[in-house]
Amino acid sequence: MTFHHLFLFYNSVLKTKWFSYKNQYGILVYKFHNGRIIMADFVLLKKKKTASIFLEDNGVFGLEKMTGIFAKDINRVSGVTPKIVKELPIDEYVIYVGVCDSKTVKEQFASRIDLSKLKGKREVYGIYILEDVINAGQKILAIIGSDKRGAIYGMFSISEKIGVSPWYYWADAKPKVKTEIILDESICKVSKEPSVRYRGFFINDEQPCFGNWAREKFGSIRPCPELYEKIFELLLRLKGNYLWPAMWRSDFTLDHIENAELANEMGVIMGASHHEPCCRSGQEFQTLRRDNPQYGTDWSFLSNAEGITEFWKDGLIRNKDFENLITIGMRGENDSYLMPEDATLEDNINVLKKAITKQKELISKYAPSEHPQLLAIYKEVEDYYFGDENTKGLKDWDVLDNDIMMLCDDNFANVRTLPDEELRKKPGGFGMYYHFDYFGEPVSYLWINSSPLTKVWDQMTMAYDYGIRSAWIVNVGDIKNQELPLSYFIDLAYDFDKWGTKAINKTEEYTVEFFKKLGFDDDVATQAAELAGEYTKWNGRRRPEALHHNHYHPVHENEAQRVLNRIYEATDKSDDLMEKMKETDLEECFFQEVYYPVNAVAEINKMQIYSGLNELYANQHKTKANEYGKLITECIERERSLTDEFHTRNNGKWNHMQSVYHIGFTHWNDEQCQLPTSHYVNAVRDPRLIVSVANQTDFTWAHRWTRHVLNMPLCFESNYLGEFEVANGGIKALEYHIDWEGDWIEIIDVSTGETLSKNEAGTTEVSNNYKVKILKDKWDNNPNAMIRIYVDNGEVVADESENGTSIPMVEIQVQAKTLDLANVEGKCFLEENGVISIEAAHFTNSKASSLAKYKEIKDFGRTLSGMKAYPQNIRFDNAEEAPALSYKIFAAEEGEYTCKIYAGASNPVVYHGKLSVGVAVNDSERTPVNTIPDKGFDPWKSASWRVGVLDNIHIGECQLSLKKGLNEITLSAIDPAVVIEKIVLWNPNVEIRESYLGPKESKLYECRPGR
Amino acid sequence: MTFHHLFLFYNSVLKTKWFSYKNQYGILVYKFHNGRIIMADFVLLKKKKTASIFLEDNGVFGLEKMTGIFAKDINRVSGVTPKIVKELPIDEYVIYVGVCDSKTVKEQFASRIDLSKLKGKREVYGIYILEDVINAGQKILAIIGSDKRGAIYGMFSISEKIGVSPWYYWADAKPKVKTEIILDESICKVSKEPSVRYRGFFINDEQPCFGNWAREKFGSIRPCPELYEKIFELLLRLKGNYLWPAMWRSDFTLDHIENAELANEMGVIMGASHHEPCCRSGQEFQTLRRDNPQYGTDWSFLSNAEGITEFWKDGLIRNKDFENLITIGMRGENDSYLMPEDATLEDNINVLKKAITKQKELISKYAPSEHPQLLAIYKEVEDYYFGDENTKGLKDWDVLDNDIMMLCDDNFANVRTLPDEELRKKPGGFGMYYHFDYFGEPVSYLWINSSPLTKVWDQMTMAYDYGIRSAWIVNVGDIKNQELPLSYFIDLAYDFDKWGTKAINKTEEYTVEFFKKLGFDDDVATQAAELAGEYTKWNGRRRPEALHHNHYHPVHENEAQRVLNRIYEATDKSDDLMEKMKETDLEECFFQEVYYPVNAVAEINKMQIYSGLNELYANQHKTKANEYGKLITECIERERSLTDEFHTRNNGKWNHMQSVYHIGFTHWNDEQCQLPTSHYVNAVRDPRLIVSVANQTDFTWAHRWTRHVLNMPLCFESNYLGEFEVANGGIKALEYHIDWEGDWIEIIDVSTGETLSKNEAGTTEVSNNYKVKILKDKWDNNPNAMIRIYVDNGEVVADESENGTSIPMVEIQVQAKTLDLANVEGKCFLEENGVISIEAAHFTNSKASSLAKYKEIKDFGRTLSGMKAYPQNIRFDNAEEAPALSYKIFAAEEGEYTCKIYAGASNPVVYHGKLSVGVAVNDSERTPVNTIPDKGFDPWKSASWRVGVLDNIHIGECQLSLKKGLNEITLSAIDPAVVIEKIVLWNPNVEIRESYLGPKESKLYECRPGR
Repeated sequence: MTFHHLFLFYNSVLKTKWFSYKNQYGILVYKFHNGRIIMADFVLLKKKKTASIFLEDNGVFGLEKMTGIFAKDINRVSGVTPKIVKELPIDEYVIYVGVCDSKTVKEQFASRIDLSKLKGKREVYGIYILEDVINAGQKILAIIGSDKRGAIYGMFSISEKIGVSPWYYWADAKPKVKTEIILDESICKVSKEPSVRYRGFFINDEQPCFGNWAREKFGSIRPCPELYEKIFELLLRLKGNYLWPAMWRSDFTLDHIENAELANEMGVIMGASHHEPCCRSGQEFQTLRRDNPQYGTDWSFLSNAEGITEFWKDGLIRNKDFENLITIGMRGENDSYLMPEDATLEDNINVLKKAITKQKELISKYAPSEHPQLLAIYKEVEDYYFGDENTKGLKDWDVLDNDIMMLCDDNFANVRTLPDEELRKKPGGFGMYYHFDYFGEPVSYLWINSSPLTKVWDQMTMAYDYGIRSAWIVNVGDIKNQELPLSYFIDLAYDFDKWGTKAINKTEEYTVEFFKKLGFDDDVATQAAELAGEYTKWNGRRRPEALHHNHYHPVHENEAQRVLNRIYEATDKSDDLMEKMKETDLEECFFQEVYYPVNAVAEINKMQIYSGLNELYANQHKTKANEYGKLITECIERERSLTDEFHTRNNGKWNHMQSVYHIGFTHWNDEQCQLPTSHYVNAVRDPRLIVSVANQTDFTWAHRWTRHVLNMPLCFESNYLGEFEVANGGIKALEYHIDWEGDWIEIIDVSTGETLSKNEAGTTEVSNNYKVKILKDKWDNNPNAMIRIYVDNGEVVADESENGTSIPMVEIQVQAKTLDLANVEGKCFLEENGVISIEAAHFTNSKASSLAKYKEIKDFGRTLSGMKAYPQNIRFDNAEEAPALSYKIFAAEEGEYTCKIYAGASNPVVYHGKLSVGVAVNDSERTPVNTIPDKGFDPWKSASWRVGVLDNIHIGECQLSLKKGLNEITLSAIDPAVVIEKIVLWNPNVEIRESYLGPKESKLYECRPGR
Repeated sequence: MTFHHLFLFYNSVLKTKWFSYKNQYGILVYKFHNGRIIMADFVLLKKKKTASIFLEDNGVFGLEKMTGIFAKDINRVSGVTPKIVKELPIDEYVIYVGVCDSKTVKEQFASRIDLSKLKGKREVYGIYILEDVINAGQKILAIIGSDKRGAIYGMFSISEKIGVSPWYYWADAKPKVKTEIILDESICKVSKEPSVRYRGFFINDEQPCFGNWAREKFGSIRPCPELYEKIFELLLRLKGNYLWPAMWRSDFTLDHIENAELANEMGVIMGASHHEPCCRSGQEFQTLRRDNPQYGTDWSFLSNAEGITEFWKDGLIRNKDFENLITIGMRGENDSYLMPEDATLEDNINVLKKAITKQKELISKYAPSEHPQLLAIYKEVEDYYFGDENTKGLKDWDVLDNDIMMLCDDNFANVRTLPDEELRKKPGGFGMYYHFDYFGEPVSYLWINSSPLTKVWDQMTMAYDYGIRSAWIVNVGDIKNQELPLSYFIDLAYDFDKWGTKAINKTEEYTVEFFKKLGFDDDVATQAAELAGEYTKWNGRRRPEALHHNHYHPVHENEAQRVLNRIYEATDKSDDLMEKMKETDLEECFFQEVYYPVNAVAEINKMQIYSGLNELYANQHKTKANEYGKLITECIERERSLTDEFHTRNNGKWNHMQSVYHIGFTHWNDEQCQLPTSHYVNAVRDPRLIVSVANQTDFTWAHRWTRHVLNMPLCFESNYLGEFEVANGGIKALEYHIDWEGDWIEIIDVSTGETLSKNEAGTTEVSNNYKVKILKDKWDNNPNAMIRIYVDNGEVVADESENGTSIPMVEIQVQAKTLDLANVEGKCFLEENGVISIEAAHFTNSKASSLAKYKEIKDFGRTLSGMKAYPQNIRFDNAEEAPALSYKIFAAEEGEYTCKIYAGASNPVVYHGKLSVGVAVNDSERTPVNTIPDKGFDPWKSASWRVGVLDNIHIGECQLSLKKGLNEITLSAIDPAVVIEKIVLWNPNVEIRESYLGPKESKLYECRPGR
């Protein structure tokens, strides 16, 4: 309820019989009748009749087409299409569509509406319910745009209100059928001017999914106007305005001039990607070269300047009458380098300047005035833009000052260098080319949504805060699968106040809203949002394409099992929900938006994790490897059948849309994709004992001769539970018994939960697990206990003597530590298995500075969340000015601990900069720890960058001298763009255990006085 | 027919009616009757009656027992047991058994026999047919020994003659039943004195096979006299005299004093292994310590000298009355080092001297006179024997001068340091402890016969030639499986003239004879010998226990397939023979001696080779990997069922005897044995083209983007045939077509043999192979041809453009060389695929020196044969005195070729010596190339030695500057003990292809004048 509502409610106590009130727009909005508020409702639909739409001949080309689409939306929910009339009818309810300058608005509505809120604005709309304006008793629902797109956005805002989702076509968000639509005052509003001027998406890398789908459904791999109409509609409904069309195997204007005409009619500003200047698509030159080589055959401004110039010229002439944001600049053919590898920076800058000069000359001559221009600072062009000490870059070339400099992320959704204050003063402003889909090094991602909104929020709010507000465009691949992040991206660009920097931790809320807007009820929407968050979390950890069997560690930190458990939980939930959605209107939508991505991604994750376990167990020759070998194959088959289902259900509407490879990229390109191999242990004949301890790859068989003792480190205060596995490597069931020395341990059979007695016999076909628990009350000050597992029906092997050394058994040496926590006050993290691991958000203290403070970005990154200093565009060279976080930890030993700082895989905002945080221990001065290598880190090309974007993490490392017992680690901000996720400290006497996500968080000890 | 036969035949032409002739022994052997020779035949059996055996009370203890065994032999073939009588009966045919000194011999036979040929000899026997000696018309078959063993050998020689094999029990060589046995003159002979004084074997490492068999069949794992009788019998029948008893879980004398008494009775000289001094078995101390610790508990001559001394003393007293060759010296318990690791050489020598001094004192006091003594120079004792510059070794300690110094091989049947001329003068002489079975580093071999006779011949004749003639003993494991090499070893020791150095290349003949003596007819014996040679060849390349999937190369040199083909051929032949032997008397014998070892070894070799192919194809993601995955499992199952069959057939007579692990040792000990893992490719859904070229692991998929061109080097004169494989990595059948540029190649479908036309289509579920052939007549001087394999129904992947770079196909670049052979005269080996590989025996010239010449040891080593310089106990420091072999080769290019000399895995005969050969190219001086590392090679311990004994090869390497075209390589002898097998030269521009056996032999070009 807005302030106005409240104000009026207060007045209602006057109990005036009739009281009318005009709101801020001068519109009559309320009536009071006997103390009850009666709104000036607008009956859009009742008894199978809808209000007609009055669309005067207002001279805005395209508004008629768009009003027709709006009329169809009303039909979508009602089955009745409103008449579109050129003269105001005398009906009680009439819809009016126009712009500020429309005759009716100026002449009839001006007195009732504060038009100043619209005039001169970009893409703003006002919605009003006007009563008795022209005809007495007539109510007009007026949708008035500041301009054409304003009016369009206005209409689509009503469409959404009445239940037509922007995704009604693309995600089968089938509107609920209504018999009556009555709009009350809440419909009335004047929209804000969009935060970012050009907002749009790029259909890209569209083979084999979008392309083959287009061919099947629309007759050609080269999209036709019928298809583009659906795309334009989507863009506009999302309140975007800017499009880079599909260009892999199609030429937007060359294929169908109607495509460009339609865009222009519908109010879509066409652009083209970074390497497609002068309204020419990327492949156009190739297409023309083949069919009609009038422009020569070389895509080179050195060897074929004339031909290329003509090519550009003709493109500009062809498209000059349409609304365009013209791309300038040049790259090599097929999105490659422009010049040979040995060309200098200066060579490159010069040829680019030459080309741009020519392009600008052509634009001013053949497509003058209204066409703004854009140069994409893509990949290597960043180097040309910034130049170096010896070579001035394009940033210093004033020819470009009025053009939009479209910066680009690193293709992995991490922004690169952002403009400093000086650059931000350039009148042309800056844009950002962002990716939800990418085809290229180090590993392409062409398939599923793998963009957690928290990451998009972090990166794009930072971009905005650094002044990138002129154009935002995002590569969405095939559109399909990117419904959620695409909506979010455009909404963020459209209403930064609502979703931007100030709205920290609203991505979850956004996601719930997204599902509600698709039509799901609150409960389902909430659960769907959780699931969408979940699978993007998995993909945010590592994309399916880049995930292999060796990423999640099969045993360290129990990582494989922990990841699996989370997956099992999500897929179970998705099964329940899918069941619930069966045979509802939104069944298809749920399948596409939730069930398919959750389950397909789950199968891939499971497959790879099973594969890691399969390999480990096969190397250990445990027969349990074979179960995992089969599971791998089952996952492959399940994932295939899910994809088949996607392609065939819903009458095959989305056939081909998931047909790109999902998994096993061995290189950047999908053609080397590999499924994991299943390894099958050929079991030995007799039973064979194979024992391993949890959290270790170490294992042993029951050797008589070369006995290898396993170790199980325990700690009274932290890891007081150990676990070991008794596995079989033979065909016959293994019989064994377990004995131990040391009365302070208890051994528990995991499957039964029962405590073992000494020498208790066991038997297993495959494997049994046992927990080892410390019994504090039986502690005898001998830190060593020995567990022995004896084989009772083992293999027949050669053995020499009957003496004790040749008994087939396995020994596990249990070693217990104690931590002296007597002097601990408050909370601290305890060392456990040689490691202290802390989620960054679990600080003991957070110290704000005069300039900034740390905030938690919830659900950010690979584990719990991220900590980032805000405002986010400041560098903190002085420790005093830096916000800080401190952590209390308890070290088991004195020594040089290895400290690892896990931070998000962002790039420095400064060209060739760093991503440092300050690290201090106890009273020491802070030391800067760079979370990327000091040298050689280069977004989109260096090996360290590659690792970072695939792992979605940067790990900074330093050595910290800890004293035994309580220590305080303090992290403080230095460089912007650093989001700290996790802090891990490794005891110098422990071998660092590799794992993908790092050790799970350590136990937080809390001293409770009085106990 | 001997000389005497011929002489008499000549006389027969006189046509004397009756003419009798006394042979060289003074025995009447022939009569002539009407020109027909009537032999003085001895009717041993006729009409179910056998001659009685007259055994006077001759005072030779044990002869009665042995005569009883001989009598049973007669029963074995006849079903009738001869009577053993103490008085000469008046029968027409009587067998007499005695020694030179027997009363009857001295009094009755002396005039008829030249006893000087027996008297004073060791273990000699004479067999005579005496007529009318005591009773008129009576024929006596006299078996007269120079001593007891002589007489026993005499009896067993007759047993063998009448068809009782030494292996009748141990190998089920069931004698043919006879109704009549008439011995003719050929039975009469005086045997030679054995070449080696002590000849025997050692039952060792006898768990789990022999031990468990003994328990099942004879009631205890500790063999009893009933079992030892069978062992003694075998030893004596083989004409051995010396035994080291089983000692893993048994104490020969302690277990049953009757064992020692029986040995003494039967004429078996008991010894004990190298670490069991003073008639005490190795485990005896442990057994006594446990049950009755009267000798203390420490097996240490430092801390428990008194106890140990008593222990030895009591052993000597206990066994002093039996015939013993007393082991002296001392090692650690369980065959380990005597002293801690930090003890100096001097410490070790001193403690050993101290122990030996004490032992000798005890022997002279408690077991004086007739007991010779033996010190084993086992493992580290060699160092104590030779000492070093600062420390005199045991060889310089005259206390040992009259004892047998038992040298030892390296446990892998390669002799170590051999005595030089000075040492050979020692009166005690030398022995050799040799191995057909070993439990220890680097990999044990406890199972099957893996000792090619050519190797035994090479090593043991070398030992003999170096003066090792006092004692030969061989470790035969469980006896079972070692029938052939054990027979050979003892025969070689018994009659070195017949089988030794002069009898080069008679091992094949020996093997045929071995099988004939088992009872097989000539044809079967010949084939059985071939098969025995074959499987020992495989094992001689690498023992099953040490063979893994990565030994034979899956593709290089087509090694896997070549080895497999040889295996398939042998197993087919064994199947045919087994079929033939079914339900004959020798079925069991054939199964044990031929069928089982051939097939079990074959399955293991196949399994590992399939595993190598499985891994390769799985890494290449070819679905054909899966066929090999299954084959691995099939081999495992077949090998198991063969072993089951061995254990169950023949009423389970040999149960347990193959129960030790056969395969997959990952360390020296069998308890870590592993079967190979089967890898299963999870195929991609659509067809996927995977192409590889023969002889290369390189392969490629049909990448659109990152195309990798395969190479196929060909040569007109040498490798004019190439081959490539078109394999599928997908579930669906792959469709493709093949096109090529270059008219001088022809492509042939291997499966049909048909020549392809351009663009010919193919389809495959799994894989198709194609040969590429050079067509000389179409040569167009362009050495490059390009083969392209296009996918016609490939995978759907992301691809950007329709231009040519994105066509899914594979390219194979064919490059052809030509060799200019115009000036070649005679023969030369041609370079082929960058390599020239020559079997050492295929020299162009062999140059003998004044001192020696090279001889071929046929079938020696891993491939064809070996070349060794004879006499084999000479070192050739001067090139002029060295015999040499030269090889003509044709190099494709000028350059520094890598030359690899493959030689047998022998050890230097000189303590810490080398194994060099001289290598020269064209007119260069020879350079010594050591086939072992110059430094650090140490038999039984260094890494280089380990590799050598497992690979059964040493490879010396040098660089040779070759000119383009014809070159001559000359190898000449330097060190003794080097047996050259193969010479390989690698072109410097070619990456050396790893393979186990090295490249197959190159093409031998021969210039034929006039063509």
